[in-house]
This record gives sequence, structure tokens and C-alpha cells, in this order.
Amino acid sequence: MQTTDSQLETFAENVEFLWKQANVPVLPCPPSPIQFLRDHIQCSKPCIIRNAITDENGVPMRLTLDDIAERLDPKKTMLTVDVTPDGHGDSVRTMSDGSSIFIQPAECEMTIEEFRRRLRGQTPAHDRTNIDLNERPILTDSITRLLSASKEIPDESVVYYSRQNDCLRKELPDLYKAFPPGIAWAEEALGPEQPLDAVNLWVGNERAISSMHKDHYENLFYVASGEKVFTVCPPANVAFLYEQRQYRSGRFQVNEQSRAWEVFAEDDDTKAHWIAPDVAILNSDKRDLLLEEYPLLKHVKPLEIRVREGEMLYLPSLWFHRVTQSCETVGVNYWYDMRFDSPSWCYFTFLQQLQHIKEVEDPSTS
Amino acid sequence: MQTTDSQLETFAENVEFLWKQANVPVLPCPPSPIQFLRDHIQCSKPCIIRNAITDENGVPMRLTLDDIAERLDPKKTMLTVDVTPDGHGDSVRTMSDGSSIFIQPAECEMTIEEFRRRLRGQTPAHDRTNIDLNERPILTDSITRLLSASKEIPDESVVYYSRQNDCLRKELPDLYKAFPPGIAWAEEALGPEQPLDAVNLWVGNERAISSMHKDHYENLFYVASGEKVFTVCPPANVAFLYEQRQYRSGRFQVNEQSRAWEVFAEDDDTKAHWIAPDVAILNSDKRDLLLEEYPLLKHVKPLEIRVREGEMLYLPSLWFHRVTQSCETVGVNYWYDMRFDSPSWCYFTFLQQLQHIKEVEDPSTS
Repeated sequence: MQTTDSQLETFAENVEFLWKQANVPVLPCPPSPIQFLRDHIQCSKPCIIRNAITDENGVPMRLTLDDIAERLDPKKTMLTVDVTPDGHGDSVRTMSDGSSIFIQPAECEMTIEEFRRRLRGQTPAHDRTNIDLNERPILTDSITRLLSASKEIPDESVVYYSRQNDCLRKELPDLYKAFPPGIAWAEEALGPEQPLDAVNLWVGNERAISSMHKDHYENLFYVASGEKVFTVCPPANVAFLYEQRQYRSGRFQVNEQSRAWEVFAEDDDTKAHWIAPDVAILNSDKRDLLLEEYPLLKHVKPLEIRVREGEMLYLPSLWFHRVTQSCETVGVNYWYDMRFDSPSWCYFTFLQQLQHIKEVEDPSTS
Repeated sequence: MQTTDSQLETFAENVEFLWKQANVPVLPCPPSPIQFLRDHIQCSKPCIIRNAITDENGVPMRLTLDDIAERLDPKKTMLTVDVTPDGHGDSVRTMSDGSSIFIQPAECEMTIEEFRRRLRGQTPAHDRTNIDLNERPILTDSITRLLSASKEIPDESVVYYSRQNDCLRKELPDLYKAFPPGIAWAEEALGPEQPLDAVNLWVGNERAISSMHKDHYENLFYVASGEKVFTVCPPANVAFLYEQRQYRSGRFQVNEQSRAWEVFAEDDDTKAHWIAPDVAILNSDKRDLLLEEYPLLKHVKPLEIRVREGEMLYLPSLWFHRVTQSCETVGVNYWYDMRFDSPSWCYFTFLQQLQHIKEVEDPSTS
């Protein structure tokens, strides 16, 4: 059974037609549970919801990093912060030896006060020259130690509070009290079989970028201050995104002697699936170069969704998303379990397999 | 991009796991709109609903053919009845010249009284010898005339009232009054964008068989008396059902001179897509023979659903179904528009294409 180019073309057109660009509706207030279920969860269609979380005066709840520092003890409250040389956490990079590795950020404990100082001390990306994205990190097989002492971190490093371990509920319960425990209309729509799994706090600025990936969750992301920029592709694009390659895993660390960034490579047995190409490049003048290496990306039309202060994005499960901020931004997201007993998951895994076989059979693209 | 046997195997396993056999839940009473939307419409999962249509005493509404004759004037009320030599309407058959044709039943106007007499006069299938299913009909290019006079019909013919043109609302409004105008909880779940499109009456017995096909409707089928037997396959099986072949169309008619059944072939330009193999054979001792001709059918596990008097079947849109009755059966079904702006439709058409290419590229199976 052959999948021809014309079939993929037709499929890509249908996908594009279904999830039309520039067509993320903005709801002025939370939808009814049945409307949310019918028009968004069922159809896997994102939307922006206004007035989803309001304060005691009925206006959208606002929370800045300064507000957080005021509510918690900024000199004593510790945060586990993701740190990278250039803002790209969880991404595939080419190493100094030419190999490709999936690199996770270094993790560092610091007070809210230090986190804020470092976040605001970062030079804006367009003024910086000292750390080049194209610079290939040095690979090491010896782990020095984790960045327990934050003084080791080079000044120009990028900090991003992006724990995804239910941190708002588990690590910052005093702050969690300021938010609704869950999103009532979403919970009624999703039902008891898709409970709330995590509530996370996110604090970062335009320097931090999460590369494109998917989550196995229904995601309700509230922007409490600043602006979040999502670049998204529908789940059906899994056939074109080169997600199925397997990469060796590594983690950023700072060399004890040189104080330079290097990558500690984990055991070869730990393989990571990730999307290598930066899909944001599809909308840039480097598009043609990217398509040479990843021809199926021609079927991918990433959509940019800007979520402003006081707005909530519903991003359905399995939607691919690359995320950054346009300024210092505080966000809180609610992750609800997705349904695996659904046709969408069944079809998704089939399309995922198609991609995988392509990779295996055509070594010229790997 | 290749679809390998092992990929299809995995896909077939996932499909089977998702839509497990013998797992059509029976709901003791109508579900809430949100439960129906979440667990059945969204997930494309059939269910049987009890007490969906009740009479003034709160018991499931019962309506037999005799009740219909009592409510309407049986000597004057005309029905447009589907007539075939052997009960198989809308099916692909091999003609006397060896070609395959998609044949529709003859249509004949008769009174309710004559319809009832003919229906009950039919010899049960297992006692009959004079019309053999394997007998190849004679093909003719000359249309004699439509069966306007019912006396032309051979006695052993099979009659089946199976209009699908909103007949209960449009042609039998006095009978429609006995039923609810629509299914309220389903309408609330489906919403205003999926309105009621048709309400149909079905009257037939064990002799009439509708071959496997799909409808582009959400189907709520109520059995008012008797028992309906559905043999169903989930939409994802479109990859294995050989649905995409194109057949010349024809219609049964009775030869004016010989009074024998023959098939009038329509213009060659009218091509019909239909499923040729009778999937019911998969559960019989002729299974291996069928698989030789249609190897992908090995991935298909048809599920039999018996819907008894007073029960309603929800059959989601695009589910393939072969339908018959175990005895004289009266049914009423409500067809609601399906959503075409859904991932399910998008994925379905992609799988449909895969099948089509297979057919085109491998002439040995066509």
C-alpha cells in the first residue's frame, strides 16, 4: 500500500482547510460545558477565552513576578529554575563532534529574588552577540555536578521558571490559593474520566523558547501578565514534522574549571523522540534551506497565537506547539488528562507510524 | 512513504482495541446530552438506549405493521416499496455476462394491505429453493417500464419498505404524529449545526438485507416491533473494506414477456462506489475463500448488534453497517447531519484514499 505525494498533498490540504489559519476564535467569556465539548474538545479546535479567571472585582486576574515576590518571601522561597546558555531548553542540537543530541536545560535552585534579578539582567536577544545559537556545544562524558550553587551560572545565561510537575499546587501552595482550584466549565465538559493532572506556573521572557513538541494533555493556559506566543500545528501534521527520530539525550552543565557551558551526554540507551527542525524558520527567509533538509515540512503551515494578559488559551491535546514570550510573562496552566480511547488517538498513532517508516526507509534524510 | 503490512497490522489492532467487540453498552434510559456527546458522539461509539421513546404510560412505544394498518387506511394508503428477487437491495452482483454491477431494487407502489399480504406470504428463506443468491441476473440495455402495476411482481419476490427520503415526516404525517418530532437529548448534544435531516420508517422481515454501507449521518434507530440485526464495522475499517471500487449502476426490473427478473443497466457514466464483499461471510465457513479475493478483510472483525423491540441504537456517522431483521420488524430512524469540520472526517478521507491507491496499483485484486 503506497502513500503517494498526491495523497499527502490532498491530506495536507484537508488538514489545512479543517484547522484554518487565523481562525482561532476569541470567546468573550467562558463557554458552556456542552459548547466547549462540542466545538472545541470534540473537534480539537483551539480557542482563546476571555474572563476565564477573574478577581473579586470581576476583572481578569492579573499577577506579575513582582506580585509573586510580594505574596511569597522572595529572599527565602526557592525556585527550581531551568537555565540554558541561549534560551533554548529541550531542543535537538548539533554538537561539536557533529552528532545530534536532545539537550535538556540545567536545573538550578535559586531564590525568587535572584531569579528576578537574573531574568531582568538578561540582555535582550537582539542586542546580544556573545552566545551564538549556531555555536556547537562541547560534549562531555563526565558529569561534573548539578548546578546547586547558582553563582556558577554565567551571567548571560537564560533563566526560565518552567517546572511541569504540578509545581503551583505542590511547591507553591500559597500562590495557588490565588487561583481557582480548577476550571469548572472545562471539568464539566471533560467529565470524571479526564481529571486535572497538574497546575503549573511559568515565568520567563522573550529570551526563553520551548521548541515544538506535543503534550498528552488538554491544556488551558492562562496569561496572568505579559504575553505568551504560541506557534502551533494540528496533530494531523505529525505525518510531516519529523518527530520520530531518536536522539541521544543530554543535559546542559557548566564546566567547573572553564565556567563554560558544555553538555553531559546521558547513557546511550536513553533515546529521546523530538522534532529537530525549528518550524518557526518556515515563516522566515531561511525557509528554503529548511525544506531542503526536511521536504515534508512544505505541508506544514504553523499558526501563531498570541495570548495576552487576562486571556486563556485552550490548546487541545496532541497539538504541536513552540512557545515563547514577547516580554516578561507570568502564566498558569491547567493540564487535564486526554482520552486515549478515542478515534483521534488511534488515527494519530497511525500517522505517526507513517512518518517513522519514511525515516527508516530513506536514510538520505536522517 | 510506505505503508507496510506491519503498520496496517498495528493500526488494525488499535482499531479493534478502541472499538472492542461485544462492547456496545446498553443504557437503561436516555443519557444526558453532555454524556451522550462525550462518550458516544465524540468517541464515535455506538450504544443501545432503552426507554428512548415511550408512550403515554411511560413504557417503550410499540408499533406493529398491523397497528400501522389500523392507523392509516390500509386499502387506500399507498407505499413505495423496494422489491428484489432475493432480498438483497443495493448490492454489487456478478451478471450473466461476468461483469459486476451495483444493483438497486425495483420500486413499486402498493397499498399497505398488499404490502402486508406480500410480506407475510413470503416463504422463509431456509425453505426456499426457487431463487438462488448465486444465480447471475440477466443484463439488459432496454428499460421496459417501472413496476407501476404490482401484479407484475413474481410471487416469491421480497418486499421491503425502506424509503430513505424522510418518508415518515413527508409521506406518512399521520403516523409521524405518534412519534416524538425529534430526539431531544440528542439534539441538545449535537447542537444547531447538526439539525434533523430525515425521519424514516422501515418495515421488513428476515428476507430483506441491506448490504454493508455507511451513511453521512448520525443515526438513531428505534425498533418499534420485531428485531433489527446490525452487522457493523468502525469507520477506521475503511482502509480494509474495498469500498472504493467503481461499479456500473443498474436497477432490477421484471421482463414484460417472460415475467422474469432482469437488470436494466444505467448509462456507463453513472459509477457507484460500494463494498463488494459480503462481510457477513467473515463469520461463516466461507471465510477463507473470501480472504483469498479480499486479503485486507483479515483486519475486519464485524460486530453483530441486535436491537430489540423498544430499544434504540445510536450508530455514529460513517460506521459501516449491514442490516437485516430476525422477523417482521417495524423501525423508525432519525438522521442528524454529521460534522464535516472534524478531525474524524479528515482522517477518514485519508484512509479512504489509501484504500483507493491500493486498488489502482494492484490490478490483480480488482
